[in-house]
Amino acid sequence: MKHIPHVSLITVIEIVAILVGAMSGFVEARRKRMDLVGVFTVAFITAFGGGTLRDILLDVRPLFWVEHQGYAILIFVLALVATPLVRTIRQIVSERIIVVADAIGLGLFAVAGVSQAQAADMPVFIAAMMGVITGIFGGVLRDIVCNEVPMVFRDGKPYAICAFFGAWLYIALQHTHVSNDFALWFSAAFITLLRLLTWKFDMRINR
Amino acid sequence: MKHIPHVSLITVIEIVAILVGAMSGFVEARRKRMDLVGVFTVAFITAFGGGTLRDILLDVRPLFWVEHQGYAILIFVLALVATPLVRTIRQIVSERIIVVADAIGLGLFAVAGVSQAQAADMPVFIAAMMGVITGIFGGVLRDIVCNEVPMVFRDGKPYAICAFFGAWLYIALQHTHVSNDFALWFSAAFITLLRLLTWKFDMRINR
Amino acid sequence: MKHIPHVSLITVIEIVAILVGAMSGFVEARRKRMDLVGVFTVAFITAFGGGTLRDILLDVRPLFWVEHQGYAILIFVLALVATPLVRTIRQIVSERIIVVADAIGLGLFAVAGVSQAQAADMPVFIAAMMGVITGIFGGVLRDIVCNEVPMVFRDGKPYAICAFFGAWLYIALQHTHVSNDFALWFSAAFITLLRLLTWKFDMRINR
Repeated sequence: MKHIPHVSLITVIEIVAILVGAMSGFVEARRKRMDLVGVFTVAFITAFGGGTLRDILLDVRPLFWVEHQGYAILIFVLALVATPLVRTIRQIVSERIIVVADAIGLGLFAVAGVSQAQAADMPVFIAAMMGVITGIFGGVLRDIVCNEVPMVFRDGKPYAICAFFGAWLYIALQHTHVSNDFALWFSAAFITLLRLLTWKFDMRINR
Repeated sequence: MKHIPHVSLITVIEIVAILVGAMSGFVEARRKRMDLVGVFTVAFITAFGGGTLRDILLDVRPLFWVEHQGYAILIFVLALVATPLVRTIRQIVSERIIVVADAIGLGLFAVAGVSQAQAADMPVFIAAMMGVITGIFGGVLRDIVCNEVPMVFRDGKPYAICAFFGAWLYIALQHTHVSNDFALWFSAAFITLLRLLTWKFDMRINR
Repeated sequence: MKHIPHVSLITVIEIVAILVGAMSGFVEARRKRMDLVGVFTVAFITAFGGGTLRDILLDVRPLFWVEHQGYAILIFVLALVATPLVRTIRQIVSERIIVVADAIGLGLFAVAGVSQAQAADMPVFIAAMMGVITGIFGGVLRDIVCNEVPMVFRDGKPYAICAFFGAWLYIALQHTHVSNDFALWFSAAFITLLRLLTWKFDMRINR
């Protein structure tokens, strides 16, 4: 239990990642012509699905969003406000901004996931997997609810793989003399930059 | 922990709601041309899925249907009997009866869900959400297994919203001088009537 | 808690069943043209999904694959190796071999599932259901992730039903004088043979 970061840092990380996830859920739900209930639920699942699945698998309770009902209320209010405005939002918010925000979310979620798994004394490979699950399963559950084959499993783009490499970087940095806070932020930034680079150059992994 | 109703009342509520859920599952599974195994499983998931998801999120065990295996056996026997008879049943049971039964189930499930979440000391907004989850996620999981975008997320009808309003009514009534039993039944009836009214007048919420 | 088999036997059973499940996941994921991430995840879900769902429903932790990270690493390595080779593998491995391996996995998973449910003091019908869930829900979750109506719910073939009969056979044998190890292997073999017989003669159950 030695490498647990300050709770406050993890909390900040998760809040940013949650808002980015919710935005991605709003867009997808509107693309599927869902109503207000669908928009809220899909945004909620996208934002909290990865962390919730991780906590169910690890048997950690209370869930983040159960303990801090403010986040659920925030997404609820955003869904009420955003649903009529989504077309306008999509005209203002370019695809580039969505990709950047999503890459930031991926880095933050994945590193937070590794950290939480280590706090639950998981073996190292499982901790790395839990980081990737936290990073990608919000989107996976979003796609399942939207009745699509999850994008992250079929587009050949190294999305989960960026999270996987960053999870191992974080684990490796814990064995150096850098502080855990530095290791957290550095690894999250690494994932974000790696994701943006692979997106910029449209890299694909061998199918 | 002050507003927990008598266990017996909650039990009666859940039994009625379970049977209604199972019926809805039978109909959907047959519509997708599923076999006996699919009919049983989809009926089971529709009947118990919402409450099971709530209990997993709250970490409550044993699950209702695990503790009382009689309900699982009941649905099993109904699936054996109902599968060859479903066409006949659908000729006898009109859409109107299905909608009415489903509206009763929605009210009962949602209020039971709020009550269970309060028994687990959940914050108030999460308790209301758990009521809605209990009320609608049986149907959501049914639609996911049947490979459809969940109806409740896309038809624009105020189904989940009726449950949400009723959940808050139940919570509000707990702060009045009415008995908890009255608050339970009154809120469940409110949800059922609101749902039937919105169905009768084919109301849609703003997309 | 009297009929718990030796841990070692159950462990061997689960390992064989996991490898068979992973293979089925590889094939399905490639059929849906998934990339490396999808192939790994679908193989993992197919192999561990049934047992994981059972353990979440029973609230048993740590999960098998969390405690023994070797299995996750094994599937990871297999995914890395298998993805480029899957076409070759499918030319070598005929459908017949896949069906036989899958029938063995079904028997082993189902009996292990009953045994685990009994270890958690479940009532007898729920224990039989948990056996079937362990046997079939890996494939069900695989099909949901692959955006298909689960095959086991719609093809009318007695797949789950073989597991169900075998689960009851195992439960019945516990009340005879045979050893629990014999009961385990005999019931697993019974399920495998019953499945292969019904496949050989293309039997269907009444829809």
